[in-house]
Amino acid sequence: MREVVILGGGFAGLYAARDLKGALAHVTVIDRTNHHLFQPMLYQVATAALSPGDIAYPVRSVLRNHRNTDVLMGEVELVDVEARNVILLDGRSVHYDYLLVALGARHSYFGHDEWEPLAPGLKAITDALEVRRRILMAFELAEQERDPARRSELLNFVIVGGGPTGVEVAGAIAEIKEKTLKRDYRNINPREARVILLEGGDRILPPYPAKLSHAAQKTLERLGVIVRTGTLVTDVRPDGVVIGDGFIPSHCVIWAAGNKASPVLKSLGAPLDRQGRVIVEPDLTIPGHPEVFVLGDAASFKHQPGYEGSLPAVSPVAIQMGHYAARLIRRETADNALVETRRPFDYFDKGQLAVIGRGRAVADLHKLKFSGFFAWLTWIFVHIAYLIGFRNRVIVLTEWAISYFTYGKGARLINRPLSSEIQCE
Amino acid sequence: MREVVILGGGFAGLYAARDLKGALAHVTVIDRTNHHLFQPMLYQVATAALSPGDIAYPVRSVLRNHRNTDVLMGEVELVDVEARNVILLDGRSVHYDYLLVALGARHSYFGHDEWEPLAPGLKAITDALEVRRRILMAFELAEQERDPARRSELLNFVIVGGGPTGVEVAGAIAEIKEKTLKRDYRNINPREARVILLEGGDRILPPYPAKLSHAAQKTLERLGVIVRTGTLVTDVRPDGVVIGDGFIPSHCVIWAAGNKASPVLKSLGAPLDRQGRVIVEPDLTIPGHPEVFVLGDAASFKHQPGYEGSLPAVSPVAIQMGHYAARLIRRETADNALVETRRPFDYFDKGQLAVIGRGRAVADLHKLKFSGFFAWLTWIFVHIAYLIGFRNRVIVLTEWAISYFTYGKGARLINRPLSSEIQCE
Repeated sequence: MREVVILGGGFAGLYAARDLKGALAHVTVIDRTNHHLFQPMLYQVATAALSPGDIAYPVRSVLRNHRNTDVLMGEVELVDVEARNVILLDGRSVHYDYLLVALGARHSYFGHDEWEPLAPGLKAITDALEVRRRILMAFELAEQERDPARRSELLNFVIVGGGPTGVEVAGAIAEIKEKTLKRDYRNINPREARVILLEGGDRILPPYPAKLSHAAQKTLERLGVIVRTGTLVTDVRPDGVVIGDGFIPSHCVIWAAGNKASPVLKSLGAPLDRQGRVIVEPDLTIPGHPEVFVLGDAASFKHQPGYEGSLPAVSPVAIQMGHYAARLIRRETADNALVETRRPFDYFDKGQLAVIGRGRAVADLHKLKFSGFFAWLTWIFVHIAYLIGFRNRVIVLTEWAISYFTYGKGARLINRPLSSEIQCE
Repeated sequence: MREVVILGGGFAGLYAARDLKGALAHVTVIDRTNHHLFQPMLYQVATAALSPGDIAYPVRSVLRNHRNTDVLMGEVELVDVEARNVILLDGRSVHYDYLLVALGARHSYFGHDEWEPLAPGLKAITDALEVRRRILMAFELAEQERDPARRSELLNFVIVGGGPTGVEVAGAIAEIKEKTLKRDYRNINPREARVILLEGGDRILPPYPAKLSHAAQKTLERLGVIVRTGTLVTDVRPDGVVIGDGFIPSHCVIWAAGNKASPVLKSLGAPLDRQGRVIVEPDLTIPGHPEVFVLGDAASFKHQPGYEGSLPAVSPVAIQMGHYAARLIRRETADNALVETRRPFDYFDKGQLAVIGRGRAVADLHKLKFSGFFAWLTWIFVHIAYLIGFRNRVIVLTEWAISYFTYGKGARLINRPLSSEIQCE
């Protein structure tokens, strides 16, 4: 039986594994955590609306009825493409006939990795909980601060990057300060907090049509967010961010500005783009190795008509790549397999959605472009539909319903009083 | 206006603060976290049934409508009872006219603090998440282990202490191995895991009537738990626990065996018992300081007829102590206050409840002693009634309903693959 090894239990890896159920191959999924994470809703954990368990689901439970599939918790060190082995950090080696590399991305600080502890991003649950702690601690520290200038600085929230994540985080913090915390403090008025969204380009949500970008900006501004486009961050310091010759004092900076692929990809020996992603062939493989696929945020796919550069790093691309690779492998490992030429991957773009706040979102479904309450309902239905696990769907819908009517946030927890380097679950 | 300072936002502190709403006094609640934790349900976080946010609620939100009340996140270093000041770790000092010390307890290792990293207990959310991580990691590591002897050791779960917490944890792990994980692994059969509950006394649930203790033990045994009474742990090692001249290999030991009061209590200069609790006067104060109350698990109250030794460290005692102290302070700070003698604290014992597993519990309501499904329903209603926050009640009931029918556990998360010292949120 052929061995298929999938690195990463994100959208690309998990959907490929699901499609390989019952294939004439043995499948091994390797992830460094034990769960699939629904990343598009991670900002809701960072802003205390949901608990981590609500948007994560054990990979081995998703695949529990796949008798041909093993799930292995482990961290990949490198891939030996010649010997066809994956080497784990603890020295174990896993042989493959087909390899699916779907390791996702971390955030990129554009060569300034020293900014990371000062401005955490949002890729894993540990990131989201660190951001949540910083947001909540900022209000606690401001409440205790006697110096009015410093108190005001503590209530500056800076979000770097005006893509969907940045917009969603900015909208959610605005809602927290305006509604959730309204009556909770005695010495500060949470409404005096400032939420500042910085975008380097000339408008937020750059991949969207200009009209929707402007609608989103107006909605954010109505929520009280200060949107600054054309603003590049040139330095991040413990006391704030430098923008050109300006400076914004802040003790809570959140990074939503770029992606950097996994360093494991270097070991594939394939060409990488500036973000470290593998520049893949039309069939998502690497040159000279039709058995090695690279999927999702780890891949730079430049063969799609109508797209300048690569396909965007969004979950629909990852899901479709997972389906595509699984289909090819099923066909090629089948009993009566013929050697066929592979039809190239072709992304079907259903559109894009970004939520801005309670009852507010923007939707670009190509023929239909709209914003407001109906876009928000669409966002909710699409996201619940893709969330994995019956229990998670019920809990998340219940949380949203309660929060819609009460403006409450269900997971406002700080466990450690002092700022600290350790990242937490 | 008189200053009332409450140390700790647990049951005693929070219920006192609630009763002081509108009193002619200014109230400050100091806690090192930002939330009230519903400790009786903490074992459900440790066993992946609930998320931390479901059983915790921000203290300042509970008290948001108390205009006379401030909430301060901070860690207490000591109390200067002569100057009537509370000194925080960061050097701040808070003056009081009345002080309520309700700092709870940590687990006690009977002088062997070196056992703590090997056998975490269950008092705070960070503890519960560490226990959860160890339980889930044990199955992951066993799945990857090739040596059958070591694989079998990895599936030994040892719970030290047969009180309510120990019984509840043992029952929940038994359910996980029998039902939740049934089909999730390929190389191990989770049902082969052994859950071993060790109790030093001659029966589990020592404060209960013997008949209920035996019913509980039978139920646990039917769930597959190995109950060993009369068994004292003499050493905890990284590879297992020593019991007299025996040894149980285990890499997941959970401590539920005893309490140790906060070291801050020493600074009160009052007599302490062996657990470090303050031996309080009949009015819950310390000798010579009628303005200093000690409440909840921090207090050793020996004046209750019908109890040998102190009142038990359970939430009903803490809640009633909080009510009692608040009532006295309200009366004494009132406009037309008369100097009255204080009537002594009198605990009204409504009974006790412990859950063993799905649909199984024991209840001792004095006149009514029963076990089984109806005891379990009683447990559910009582616990939902005392849970703070509408949202938490809805979510917890929903989680329980789903889990009752599916045997699923909603929060099976491991974020870090390697065993690690850092404690996480």
